[in-house]
This record gives sequence, C-alpha cells and structure tokens, in this order.
Amino acid sequence: MHPVDVVRVGGRASERRRDFAAAEEPLEIRLNDTPFVVTMRTPGADRELAVGLLVSERIVSSLEDIGTVRHCGNATDEGEENVIDVTLVGPAAARAETALSGRRLVTVTAACGVCGRRSIEDLMQDVTPVADGWSMTAAAAASLPERLRAAQAVFDETGGLHAAGLFDAHGTLVASAEDVGRHNAVDKVIGGQLLADRWPLENLALFVSGRTSFEIVQKAVVAGIPIVGAVSAPSSLAVGLARAAGVTLLGFVRGDTFNIYAGEQRIVAEA
Amino acid sequence: MHPVDVVRVGGRASERRRDFAAAEEPLEIRLNDTPFVVTMRTPGADRELAVGLLVSERIVSSLEDIGTVRHCGNATDEGEENVIDVTLVGPAAARAETALSGRRLVTVTAACGVCGRRSIEDLMQDVTPVADGWSMTAAAAASLPERLRAAQAVFDETGGLHAAGLFDAHGTLVASAEDVGRHNAVDKVIGGQLLADRWPLENLALFVSGRTSFEIVQKAVVAGIPIVGAVSAPSSLAVGLARAAGVTLLGFVRGDTFNIYAGEQRIVAEA
Repeated sequence: MHPVDVVRVGGRASERRRDFAAAEEPLEIRLNDTPFVVTMRTPGADRELAVGLLVSERIVSSLEDIGTVRHCGNATDEGEENVIDVTLVGPAAARAETALSGRRLVTVTAACGVCGRRSIEDLMQDVTPVADGWSMTAAAAASLPERLRAAQAVFDETGGLHAAGLFDAHGTLVASAEDVGRHNAVDKVIGGQLLADRWPLENLALFVSGRTSFEIVQKAVVAGIPIVGAVSAPSSLAVGLARAAGVTLLGFVRGDTFNIYAGEQRIVAEA
Repeated sequence: MHPVDVVRVGGRASERRRDFAAAEEPLEIRLNDTPFVVTMRTPGADRELAVGLLVSERIVSSLEDIGTVRHCGNATDEGEENVIDVTLVGPAAARAETALSGRRLVTVTAACGVCGRRSIEDLMQDVTPVADGWSMTAAAAASLPERLRAAQAVFDETGGLHAAGLFDAHGTLVASAEDVGRHNAVDKVIGGQLLADRWPLENLALFVSGRTSFEIVQKAVVAGIPIVGAVSAPSSLAVGLARAAGVTLLGFVRGDTFNIYAGEQRIVAEA
C-alpha cells in the first residue's frame, strides 16, 4: 500500500485527506539471466509470481525444472526488488531458449486465421484434460467468496486489488494472493504450490474475485485444477475452454447461489 | 453475447436455464501484413481497437499515419473477422518496422533495473504533459458513472464486460465501448476518435468501469486526455503517472462523491 494525499469531494464540500493506493511496480522476469518479460504487479510473492507465469507459459511443468529463483536487481537502486531471475534446468532450459528466441510468437495459423475454437484446440494439443473424481459440495462452493474476502486484508484498505485463492474440498483456504492484475494473483497462488512441490493441483479449487476469461481458465487447466469459480461472469471462451478441458466452471457465486457453466458433476449436494 | 446453458444452483434446488456470456475471441493485428500481436477481445469495433492499440504503442500518432484498416481473415473460415491489417505510411511505417523487429522489447535498463519512477520517466521522455485550461464541474464529474452505465446495453445482460466512455465538459457521452478487457475498451474509444480525425483528445474526459492502472493512465496521456475517472481505485503507479503527466485522476466516483488523486485544478465548483 502506498499512502496518497487526495481531495475528497462530496456534494458541495471537499477536504484533503490521506488515503492509500494499491502498490503497482514493474517486475522484470529473467530466464537464465536473459530478460524474458516485464509485468506490472503488486510487489510481494514475486518468486511465486515468476514461477506461476512460467507454468502458464508452459516453460515450467514441475519443481525439477527450476534451479534457483532469486531477486537480482541492483541493491543500491530503488528497483532492487523489481528484477527476478529464474534458472531453468533440463528440458525446461531448452523451452526457455525457444521462448526467448520468440519463436512461439510466430505461431500464425493457416487454417482459420485465429479463432476461439482454434485457441482451445491449440491449447488442448499440449495439455491433458483435468482428471475427474474430485468433488465439492454446493455449500462449500457457495462459501468461497466469503472465505476469500476474509483473507483479503489489503483489499479493504485500498479497494484496488484483485484476489485469487486455492481451496480444498471442504472450502478451506490453502493459499491466497492479491495483485493489481487478476492474472498475477492467479500466477502467485499457482506458483506458490509448485515451489512447495505440491503438484499438480488435482484436489484444489481456484476462486477469483472478478470475472473469468480464457486466460484465467487456461492457467487452471495447465495446473490441473478441476474447479474454477468467480464472483462475476465468465466469457464465452472461458466457458468453451472449461468444457473442452473438463474443468468445472462456476460464476456469479453470491450468497448461496451460483451458476455452473461446465462440469456440473463435480458439484454435489452432500459430501 | 453468446447463449450458454447453465445450471443455476440456489440453496438446495437447482435448475437448468439459458444464460448469456460476454463474447471473447482472439484478434490478430497485422502491420503492413506482418503479424504484430494477438489480443483477446470482445468482437466489435475492431478497427477502433487496432488503431487505439497502435496509438498506445506510440506507433500511430495521427490519422495521416494510417493507410487502410481492414479485416483480412479467410472468408470461408469462422475466424474471418479475427484478423485485421493496418497499413502504415510515412514515419509510422518505420516505427512499425522497429516494433516488429522486437527492438522495443530489449529496452532493459542499466540505471535501476526496472522501477515505477523509471517507467514514468521513460514514458515522459516521449510524450508531452497534458495541456491545462480545460475543466469540468464536480457535478458533471460525479454524473459520469451513471451516464456510462446507461450506455452499457450489453453489460446488464452478461455482467462480464468492462466499459470505457469519453465525455465532454458537460458530461455528455461522446463515445463508449465495452470489452472483456478493460484496456481494449479504452483502446476502442480512443482509436475511434483518431479514425474520425478528432485528435488529440484535449477536451474530453475518459471514464472506466473498474480500476485504473499505469496502463490505463498511459493510454490517456498518449491521447492527450486531461481527465481520467473510474468507479474504483487507482494503483500507486497510476497516481504517480497522472501527477507526472499533468492528468487529473478521479477514483471511487460513486453517488455525488469522489476522490481527486491528481490535477485537482480541473475540477471546479461551477461552470
């Protein structure tokens, strides 16, 4: 949180006061000391964020792929904490080379230009559908927004952060993260599990504070997460990917009601 | 909007019903027929989106930079509308070459790694601060959320879209756009103005439905927009950039109250 001086305007009156804004800073992620990407994020859980982003990019697929993860900015500068280097070993090092040479940017398609169906098919060529067999009660699913909110200490102060949480079958919070970017919050919770060598995430549900897009469901699929829920709506492509990948997708989870957009078999009446 | 079949769960009952999800599809933007970027967006206003994105990337700075903007997907495929080509002329063509060769990705810094202050300084080296002299009454500013919401026909149906609007000094809506991505909605309204040769946007306010990040304020600065407002909170870097660039930044605009984070001189009591 950053303190900021604001002018609060209400009706015809206004007053100066101290407020707080959610912290946003760039993070440069390096692979084996070569700059890979810069993302704007809320500082904190940077190691988890870097690893989670590399999982989403399908460069990292297990803890064995990772040598070290460490901040490497110049300690005398204010950007000290804003550069992080991930050393990759084995096949992941080769995938990093490919990513760095930008070859994956040139995957232009002949078939139908680009389209949603194609985006889903491309992803599903590389990943396996999520395993069945795990389930959660409707009551536990409905409890996730409240449990995530309870973990969001900072959110109440600034109103500027997205949150993501991982939950077990009872709806108990396993990990949570906050960030100015929703995708970053998801990367942080997923990366944290891989760094703790709890992988893949076949027995966890992901819950996010906002909407679900293709990108959010993609991150869940790559991590093997069987249930994804959100306070708000999914996009058409989020629904399409969830159905193709066998992910249970919940939306508008509010009070004791919610919509199931895909994979309803995992939401059961009683445990 | 895409129709989707959902299972609606409420308490102990559940029912199947038809719902709607916000459309999300990839859009490939080409520069002079060479693939530049793929963005996930809600179809519609694609020409405006492509041009607005190129404005933000500082490849396009006026209508003279643009030759043609046209969809170029294969008409027999479902992705027909998902590829758009922008032909650039004059200095913009050279800037496009630079962008395509990826040189701008290698702007790694020696000074302090990366940091928020540096991000702001880098941007301000290329753009001029927003001109002073334009203003809006507090009452007009407070009316923007309601006016933007009134323009959001689709939002009410799906709950899955971000909105952005441009408004004149009286708070009258000049243009609005909706998208699954907030940055896309902003690109669409800004790109539409450039395509109509109303440029720069020195006499307009930008209002967005969610939060404001560095990226949103950056888009406003590049377009010359003097006032940026949002229903929710700005990030620390959004505040920092607004102050450096002379942009008026409003947050938590709700009812007749709001916070002014920067540039309070443009919000006046009476017209």
